[in-house]
Amino acid sequence: MINSSICTIGDEILIGQIVDTNSSHFAQALNGIGVRVTRMVSFGDDRQAIISGLERELKENRIVIVTGGLGPTKDDITKPALAELSGSRSVKTDTRQLEIIHRILRSRGLDVLDINAAQADVPDTCEVIPNRLGTAPIMVFRFDAGRFGHSCTLYSLPGVPFEALGAIPDIIDDIRKHYPTDDICHKTVMTYGLAESQLAKLIEPWENALPENIRLAYLPNPLTGVRLRLSIYGGEKAQEDMQIGQQLESLRKILGNHIYAEEDTDLQETVGRLLLKAGRTLSAAESCTGGMISHLITSVAGSSQYYLGSVTSYANSVKENVLGVPSEIIEKYGAVSSECVAKMAEGVKKITGSDYSVATSGIAGPGGGTPDKPVGLVWIGVCSLTGTETFSIVYKNDRKRNIERFAATALDFLRKAIERDLNN
Amino acid sequence: MINSSICTIGDEILIGQIVDTNSSHFAQALNGIGVRVTRMVSFGDDRQAIISGLERELKENRIVIVTGGLGPTKDDITKPALAELSGSRSVKTDTRQLEIIHRILRSRGLDVLDINAAQADVPDTCEVIPNRLGTAPIMVFRFDAGRFGHSCTLYSLPGVPFEALGAIPDIIDDIRKHYPTDDICHKTVMTYGLAESQLAKLIEPWENALPENIRLAYLPNPLTGVRLRLSIYGGEKAQEDMQIGQQLESLRKILGNHIYAEEDTDLQETVGRLLLKAGRTLSAAESCTGGMISHLITSVAGSSQYYLGSVTSYANSVKENVLGVPSEIIEKYGAVSSECVAKMAEGVKKITGSDYSVATSGIAGPGGGTPDKPVGLVWIGVCSLTGTETFSIVYKNDRKRNIERFAATALDFLRKAIERDLNN
Repeated sequence: MINSSICTIGDEILIGQIVDTNSSHFAQALNGIGVRVTRMVSFGDDRQAIISGLERELKENRIVIVTGGLGPTKDDITKPALAELSGSRSVKTDTRQLEIIHRILRSRGLDVLDINAAQADVPDTCEVIPNRLGTAPIMVFRFDAGRFGHSCTLYSLPGVPFEALGAIPDIIDDIRKHYPTDDICHKTVMTYGLAESQLAKLIEPWENALPENIRLAYLPNPLTGVRLRLSIYGGEKAQEDMQIGQQLESLRKILGNHIYAEEDTDLQETVGRLLLKAGRTLSAAESCTGGMISHLITSVAGSSQYYLGSVTSYANSVKENVLGVPSEIIEKYGAVSSECVAKMAEGVKKITGSDYSVATSGIAGPGGGTPDKPVGLVWIGVCSLTGTETFSIVYKNDRKRNIERFAATALDFLRKAIERDLNN
Repeated sequence: MINSSICTIGDEILIGQIVDTNSSHFAQALNGIGVRVTRMVSFGDDRQAIISGLERELKENRIVIVTGGLGPTKDDITKPALAELSGSRSVKTDTRQLEIIHRILRSRGLDVLDINAAQADVPDTCEVIPNRLGTAPIMVFRFDAGRFGHSCTLYSLPGVPFEALGAIPDIIDDIRKHYPTDDICHKTVMTYGLAESQLAKLIEPWENALPENIRLAYLPNPLTGVRLRLSIYGGEKAQEDMQIGQQLESLRKILGNHIYAEEDTDLQETVGRLLLKAGRTLSAAESCTGGMISHLITSVAGSSQYYLGSVTSYANSVKENVLGVPSEIIEKYGAVSSECVAKMAEGVKKITGSDYSVATSGIAGPGGGTPDKPVGLVWIGVCSLTGTETFSIVYKNDRKRNIERFAATALDFLRKAIERDLNN
C-alpha cells in the first residue's frame, strides 16, 4: 500500500471560519483505490509554513494532495510557494486553461482582467490538468527519488469544493497511471431502525466470520439510519462479486426489512422509488416535524410525480379546521396521540386525494413534556392501501436531532407500508 | 501572540468516514483569545505516528489541542501514546471521573464494566479536568522548556463533538491562566440580500477606513446571508465598545435594512422575535420550497407561540382545493406567477386565521424551466397588515441550493414586511 497525505491551505480554515470538507472526499477516493491516507494537515496562507510543511509531507508520502490558496487575489500564495518548492525558474502559460478562463468569465458577462488571465500562468516545473469548472488550473509536480528519497507527486487543486471534488476522477486516473493501486470493490447496505450499537451486536457473529479480505464500516446518520459499507480487497472482480453476494444473503436473513436499500441512497429517495413503482401518490400532515418530512420528500428531483403536498398543522386549530381532526379527539386523547395522528393522516389523504399519507405529532422539546408524554415522544400515522396504522417511539436528543429522527422514522414506517402493499 | 496546533486522532477521519468539525470550533475559541492556530493535523490510530506527530507540534507550538482516540475499545490508543510521550511510569485513577462514569452508565441502565471504569485511569504525568458530559476524562500534560525548547501544554479531549465542544470553556480558562492572551471583542452583523462580492464592493470605502485594530471577516451562508464579523484587538473594553458603536453607525447608513440583526442569529429567529414583539401569528404556503420554510420556522424553540402552520401545495390540485387558488389564475398566469403566490398567501392566511402569511412558487430544477420562467425563478408572496405584496428573483444554483435560497429570501421578504408594520 502506498501512503498519501491530504493538505489544505487557507487562513479561513485556521481561524475556524470554514470547515474543510474536501479532505474527507479525497480520503474516500484514495482509500477506494487502496492508497492509505496517513495524515491530513491544514496550513495558513504563510509561504514558509507551506513550503516546509509540504516538504515534510513529500518526504513521508508518495502522494500529496493540496487544495486551496489558488485564488486570483494576493493573499493566495500557494502558487509562488510551489514554484519555490519545485525550483521553478520561469512561468509558462497554459493555453487550455486560459481559454477556459475566457469562457467562464464571458458566460458571467465579465471582462478578463490581468489578474484573471494570470491564473493560467503556472511554474514551468509542473504539468497541468485543465480545470473545466473554474479558473485555477490543477498543477501536478513530479519529484524523482533524488529530491525526497522516493519518487513522489504533489497535486495542487483549487479549494472551492465544487471544483476540487470535480477534479477527483482526473487525479485518481493519474495516480492509477503512475502508482500501484488496488481495485477495491465496495458495497453499501442502508439500514434503518437499529442504533449502531444494537446493529453491531446483532450482526456480530456474521461480522466476525467475514473473510479477511472483507472489511466492514458503520456510517450512522440520523436522517438515513446506519449505512454499512463492505469493502473487498485484492481479488478478481468476478470473485469479489460472488463473495459479496454470499455475504449479503446472510446479512439479509439477519436484518430483514431493517435493510431498505442495497445501494447508497436515503429514505426519501427509497420512498419515491417505491411510489413510482406502485404508481401511487403521497401527502403528509406534520405537527412536531414542522415541514421537515415534506422538505425531505421534495428534496428529491422529480418528486412532483408522486407527491401532492402537505399540511403543517402546528396549531390545534389547523388540525381541526384544515385537516378535520374532531376537536373531541384532541380534547380526549391530546394532540400527541395515536388517535390524533390517525385522524391527521386520514384528513390530509382526503383533502389532497392521495393514495398514501403520513402524519406526525410529538414533542420535540426542549420544553413541553409530561411524565406520560415526555420530550422526545412522537406518534406516527400512515394511511396505506389497507388502512390506517400508528406507531410511537421516544428519542432522547435535542430539538434539532429529535425533529430529524421523527421525520426519518416516519419515512421508514411509510416505506415499510408501501413495500408491504407492493408485495401483496 | 502565542502559537497553537489543533490535532485530531482517528482512522475514521483518514478514511473519509467523518468530517472533523471540532477543530473549527476550537480554532474560533483560540482566535477569540488571541491565540494563533498555525496548523490543524489529523493522525490515524497509530501509536508511533501519534507520538512523533505530537512531538513535532509541541516543538513548534505552546498549546496543542488533541481530540479523539479516547474511547473504551482497544483501537483507541491516544492514552498509551500520551503516556509514552510524557514519560509516564504508572497510572492513577481520577475518582471524580470514575464517579461520573458510574452516574452516566447508571442513567442509561447499564452496568459499569472494567473497560468503562478503566477510562478514569490516566497517566500519572497529567492533570485531569473532569468531563461531565461523557466517560473519558480531559487530560492536561504540561511540559517545561527542557523538553521541547519552550514550556508548552497538551490538552487531550474526547472526539465526540458534544463532549469536545462542551470542554472548550474549561480549556480556554486554563489557557488564560497559564499564557498571555488578548481580550478580543467581537461584534456580528447579519445581512441578507447582497452577495458577498456586492456587499464587499458597497462597503469597501468603509472597510478601507477601519482603524488598524479592527478586522472584518465575511461569512456567507445561503440560509442566513452574509454574516459580518468585526474583531477588535488590544484595547480597553469601554474604548472598544465605543469604537464598535461608531463603526456600526456608519455601516447602518450604508446597508440600511439589508442588516437584519446585530447579533449572531438567523432569519427564522429574527422573524420569530419580530412576531412575538408584534403579538402576531404566521402561516405559510409552499410550492417549490416544499416545506423548507415551515421547517426553518419550527426549528426555533417556542415557535408554536406565533406559528400556526402551513400548506405545501406541490400539486396544483392542492393549490386549488386546499388553498382556494382559482383554477383560472393557474390557467391564465401559471402556478409560478405573482398572481398565484398572492392567492396562495391569501388562501393560507384565511384557512389558518393567521395575521401574516408567506408563500412561494418557483422552479427549483433540475428540469422544468422555460425561457420565460427559467430554472431558479421564484415568486414570493407576503400578506402583511397592509395587504398582499409579491416579489420575484432568479437564482442560478442546483436544486438543493435553490430551495435554500428561495426559503431564505422568502423569510427576508417577510421580515421586512413585519418590520415595516412595526414601525408604522
